[in-house]
Amino acid sequence: MAVGPDSLATLHAVSGFRLGIASAGIKKPGRLDLVVMEICQGASVSGVFTTNAFCAAPVQVAKKHLQQQAPAYLMINTGYANAGTGADGIKNCELSCSGLAELCDVPTEAIIPFSTGVIGEPLPVAKILAALPAALADFNEQGWARAAQGIMTTDTRPKAASRQLQLQGNTVSITGIAKGAGMIKPNMATMLSFIATDAAIAPALLDTIIQQAISQSFNRITIDGDTSTNDACLLVATGQAAVELIDSEANPDYVTLRDAITEVFIELAQGLVRDGEGATKFVTVAVNTAGSEAEALKVAYTIAESPLVKTALFASDPNWGRLLAAIGRTGVENLQVDQISIYINEVLIAEKGCRAASYSEEQGVAAMAEEEIVIRIELGRGQQTATIWTCDLSEEYVRINADYRS
Amino acid sequence: MAVGPDSLATLHAVSGFRLGIASAGIKKPGRLDLVVMEICQGASVSGVFTTNAFCAAPVQVAKKHLQQQAPAYLMINTGYANAGTGADGIKNCELSCSGLAELCDVPTEAIIPFSTGVIGEPLPVAKILAALPAALADFNEQGWARAAQGIMTTDTRPKAASRQLQLQGNTVSITGIAKGAGMIKPNMATMLSFIATDAAIAPALLDTIIQQAISQSFNRITIDGDTSTNDACLLVATGQAAVELIDSEANPDYVTLRDAITEVFIELAQGLVRDGEGATKFVTVAVNTAGSEAEALKVAYTIAESPLVKTALFASDPNWGRLLAAIGRTGVENLQVDQISIYINEVLIAEKGCRAASYSEEQGVAAMAEEEIVIRIELGRGQQTATIWTCDLSEEYVRINADYRS
Repeated sequence: MAVGPDSLATLHAVSGFRLGIASAGIKKPGRLDLVVMEICQGASVSGVFTTNAFCAAPVQVAKKHLQQQAPAYLMINTGYANAGTGADGIKNCELSCSGLAELCDVPTEAIIPFSTGVIGEPLPVAKILAALPAALADFNEQGWARAAQGIMTTDTRPKAASRQLQLQGNTVSITGIAKGAGMIKPNMATMLSFIATDAAIAPALLDTIIQQAISQSFNRITIDGDTSTNDACLLVATGQAAVELIDSEANPDYVTLRDAITEVFIELAQGLVRDGEGATKFVTVAVNTAGSEAEALKVAYTIAESPLVKTALFASDPNWGRLLAAIGRTGVENLQVDQISIYINEVLIAEKGCRAASYSEEQGVAAMAEEEIVIRIELGRGQQTATIWTCDLSEEYVRINADYRS
Repeated sequence: MAVGPDSLATLHAVSGFRLGIASAGIKKPGRLDLVVMEICQGASVSGVFTTNAFCAAPVQVAKKHLQQQAPAYLMINTGYANAGTGADGIKNCELSCSGLAELCDVPTEAIIPFSTGVIGEPLPVAKILAALPAALADFNEQGWARAAQGIMTTDTRPKAASRQLQLQGNTVSITGIAKGAGMIKPNMATMLSFIATDAAIAPALLDTIIQQAISQSFNRITIDGDTSTNDACLLVATGQAAVELIDSEANPDYVTLRDAITEVFIELAQGLVRDGEGATKFVTVAVNTAGSEAEALKVAYTIAESPLVKTALFASDPNWGRLLAAIGRTGVENLQVDQISIYINEVLIAEKGCRAASYSEEQGVAAMAEEEIVIRIELGRGQQTATIWTCDLSEEYVRINADYRS
């Protein structure tokens, strides 16, 4: 199951960024499970990683390598996450990095590794090394769609987003892919996601852009509240488009480009939710008139992660009492329940803390029948606001996660 | 589904405490849905209520009445929770209290009301008033088992616990009942639970006992992380047994009695988890060698509420990577993952943050096949500990909660 159309948009090539995809037979024979991405010299790269204390071996190695060397290649495997694997996990990760480095004649530190899949199993290094030549032979600037396939695990469909815009009379492209359908509540980081633009952006500014974009996209989604050990997001600016380097927020092109990049991030983040494990609904939770953004987020996430709210969404049941109970248990101080209003797809369900006089069950049933649901909460405490995205909890979610390893 | 034997133990009558059960047809015709309990004069009563900001009308009225008057009757209805009902909800609650008060010739404030069921629907006062005479006619000290039936909603079986002990050469009885199977993560309060003893306990001391007992029982369970709007727990000491008043912690009988009462609380709390919606496993999460109790509880609840851990439990899948990922995202500061060990039913699964050398998948599969699972985490940071109880997440949980209102 997944929500919304599943056809991939046109994915624009990003000059200076090539992708090669192969099948290494890591967990299942025949599946595309190995992706290598080549970054041209002189590119800027910014990365953000999981905050989970049990961060995976590749996350530890990737962070170290990024500090030591300008990255030349990104190497991603699915099947096994190489997390909870201790010192052997680090060694296996370094071995696969040095294998690719040798083939490409670059220092090992120029390889940035990523893994995703089952936690706790050893990384099959030999299979990865054997498949690397096929991935390199496949290098192509048009490889985005196949790469989006190649990084999937429990995803039912690839996620990608792309934009083109005109800067200084020339075309700039932004294209990104992402994977992830479960264990999704990125926290100051994201699931695996790779976004590249051929604009030229100074490294410090690229860091600012990735932080801002993530705070509005991957850090605003939850599928099941579980934060992965392997979350990672990389933003690359190759500088190969015929536009000048952007190295200051004062540059008039900065905001245009930042907003376009942020749009790609949001589309990818929403794509993860639309393909959330077992998802039948795409749900926007908007909390307005809050006293602070933190308080708005607390209310939004409590709603989005309540199993009772999520099962009511699955049932298309306008069971607003569950929304009210979730809001009431958030622990927001001095919450005045008689100031609170609840809307579902703009139908006023509850006001002043109880059922709205104008509300009829028929209205609620009609609103909840939609595949895309907006739950809007007005707290009546201030001017702050937060919007996050989530999906429902279906029997299929339980089936998928009771079966995943088998 | 429910875990463990479902036969009720012998429930000892508590002298000075009578129960009457009736069918008011509140939501479904013929169901026992109205319970009245009569407390003898001179009894001590302590109550603890939900911390949900959207606390229900009966919770607000019960708290007010308890401050104004020694309680004489407890009145419980199922079907509708009378929560999220605003000023009308308070009025309906007061109307049903004054109806019972009139029949029993006591002040309205001597009636303590409780409701449980669907949130947001108006309380059908007329049906309750019409059924009260039948409940009063049914008054009986042997009514505990039927009362346990009469307070059920999505429960598949009644929960009750009972103890007798000898104090000063005389018999003292403690008996309690509880209800609740979903929207269960009591927070400084409990689901509906009523416990009585015929010992004589001074009110201040009874408050101490209920707080201590709750902190070890109802505040140590979670089914789905959702805290109800109507949670309430009442402990009554009728003083009708032939033993002297206990009015000091220095009284040698105090600890004996307190511990017996706490045992009843724990048995009831575990009973809620065993009958958790869709539960097929009864799971104890014990976190040891923690730096603080708060930190131990944080880790324990993160595990117990992780949908991925809960679905793995349902599948009897020793997917310890999910335990590790849950521990890693708790936000405990400076967590040293290489100090952490994980046991499932005393099988060492992971040590030093990765798979134990001695572990085999066969051991894990055998441990997880049990209906009762103990997950033990050693954090290796100190001497503090916390134990909580939870259940798994099955497809049946989703079915129940997608169907509940229909």
